[in-house]
Amino acid sequence: MGAVEPAGDSIRVAPAEYGTVDDVVRGLIGVPLVREWLRDVEPQPLSSVALGAPLQRFNRDILCTGWNYVDHFYESAGKREGQDPDALPAHPTFFTKGPDTVIGPYDPIAYDAELSRQWDYEAELAIVIGRDGRSIPAERAHQHVFGYLVANDVSQRDLQRAHGGQWLKGKSIDATMPLGPWITTADEIPDPAGLRITCEVNGVVLQAATVGQMAFDIPRLIEELSRGMTLRAGDVLLTGTPSGIGNAREPQVFLSDGDQVVTRVSKLGSLRNQVSRTRLTS
Amino acid sequence: MGAVEPAGDSIRVAPAEYGTVDDVVRGLIGVPLVREWLRDVEPQPLSSVALGAPLQRFNRDILCTGWNYVDHFYESAGKREGQDPDALPAHPTFFTKGPDTVIGPYDPIAYDAELSRQWDYEAELAIVIGRDGRSIPAERAHQHVFGYLVANDVSQRDLQRAHGGQWLKGKSIDATMPLGPWITTADEIPDPAGLRITCEVNGVVLQAATVGQMAFDIPRLIEELSRGMTLRAGDVLLTGTPSGIGNAREPQVFLSDGDQVVTRVSKLGSLRNQVSRTRLTS
Repeated sequence: MGAVEPAGDSIRVAPAEYGTVDDVVRGLIGVPLVREWLRDVEPQPLSSVALGAPLQRFNRDILCTGWNYVDHFYESAGKREGQDPDALPAHPTFFTKGPDTVIGPYDPIAYDAELSRQWDYEAELAIVIGRDGRSIPAERAHQHVFGYLVANDVSQRDLQRAHGGQWLKGKSIDATMPLGPWITTADEIPDPAGLRITCEVNGVVLQAATVGQMAFDIPRLIEELSRGMTLRAGDVLLTGTPSGIGNAREPQVFLSDGDQVVTRVSKLGSLRNQVSRTRLTS
Repeated sequence: MGAVEPAGDSIRVAPAEYGTVDDVVRGLIGVPLVREWLRDVEPQPLSSVALGAPLQRFNRDILCTGWNYVDHFYESAGKREGQDPDALPAHPTFFTKGPDTVIGPYDPIAYDAELSRQWDYEAELAIVIGRDGRSIPAERAHQHVFGYLVANDVSQRDLQRAHGGQWLKGKSIDATMPLGPWITTADEIPDPAGLRITCEVNGVVLQAATVGQMAFDIPRLIEELSRGMTLRAGDVLLTGTPSGIGNAREPQVFLSDGDQVVTRVSKLGSLRNQVSRTRLTS
């Protein structure tokens, strides 16, 4: 566990026995106590530590939102089976990714062309829940947000379609979802709508939007998702990707071995991941 | 932790400090050791103990299979948005339910008409994974099955449709999925295809099938689901429901307050649950 300095280039690291960020998010260790612990720790260059995913322990699958930027909704119109291509949805689309998808902010994305020929990128703002709640009204949703981080919901489009129209399988290949680079606590982001989100592949910007372009904002997502379903401290919710994904481009752009993906959200930092051919064994 | 006697009417219960069934499923406590512990314990009537769900700790969401009985696939034909109504699928449909859905074998199903007006039943055979694996070939899949149990994938059909065609939200209302009544270890079920599955509502049999009617059998489900995605000891997989669900009936049949649901799989036991109006608070 550590805390990145405001300038973003140095970090104060607590001794391992003090606990983990997972404990802090779950309220087992208070943020003020962590601040106190770290006050006397000498900052070290961020480049001198190997950052893993800030969260390592998951209560459940990673919660995700689909079609939540209006432009992305329209770019996918021809590909939404059985949906009216023009009608904006009345409720958000939710699905999950397996927890084994999570990798650190600079880890390789475990690419395997035998699993899929259509690897796509999806830059997203993620939130981590800091307080349990069920049927949380939008106006109280902010009380349940511990903080924000960056994610890339790397997806396999052929697998996403091949399993009866349910997306789980095309969203759950192990070691493919970078998460981080750290958690920015909610108090530092008074207005998430102003955040800028981009995805670059090999230095070319392919997605660029502001979080304010979401069809359903974060309080509304929390309200709808938690309706009848408890959200727990430590749960992670991805909030959807803007337009510009590879599957919707003409011609289509898919990721392949060696590609460099940079996923950035202003004020939250960047993920830098190389797509790397990997054969994970069972 | 305890062991139900073969006749199914008595149980030997180990002292709480010996650990939980979750530990056994994960291999932290060996089944032979549990047998040894329980050898000298006096059996007591099953009716004298309050059975909770045999699994209480989950690694991730509950994994589920859709449209896996051919009759059920056809009865849902008109309701499958964007799918060819006649073409049998080439791959299974997978989705998840939140872990907070799980209740014990005789617990009330937490019905709330404000969340949905279309509460439906789905009797299912569930398996619990006993050994981690990724890209498991069908012929080795049996090595990863710890045992079998009964589940009812209670679903809210309006919610299932209202969220962009992804089923998570209509499958994840808290305290609605009975699981149990206990785990029958795989060695006791040499041929799962011969198991008979039924669902009764208020004494009327509304679903009846044999597991052999599955479109994709258990080894094939494990092969497809684990392709590129690690399955872990303790993961639960529901294998799909046969025909006869309320949503596909003419006229439709939906559950309401006070209904009695009995879900049975031969050799595995029965779940008995009353649908009970509940307002869970946040």
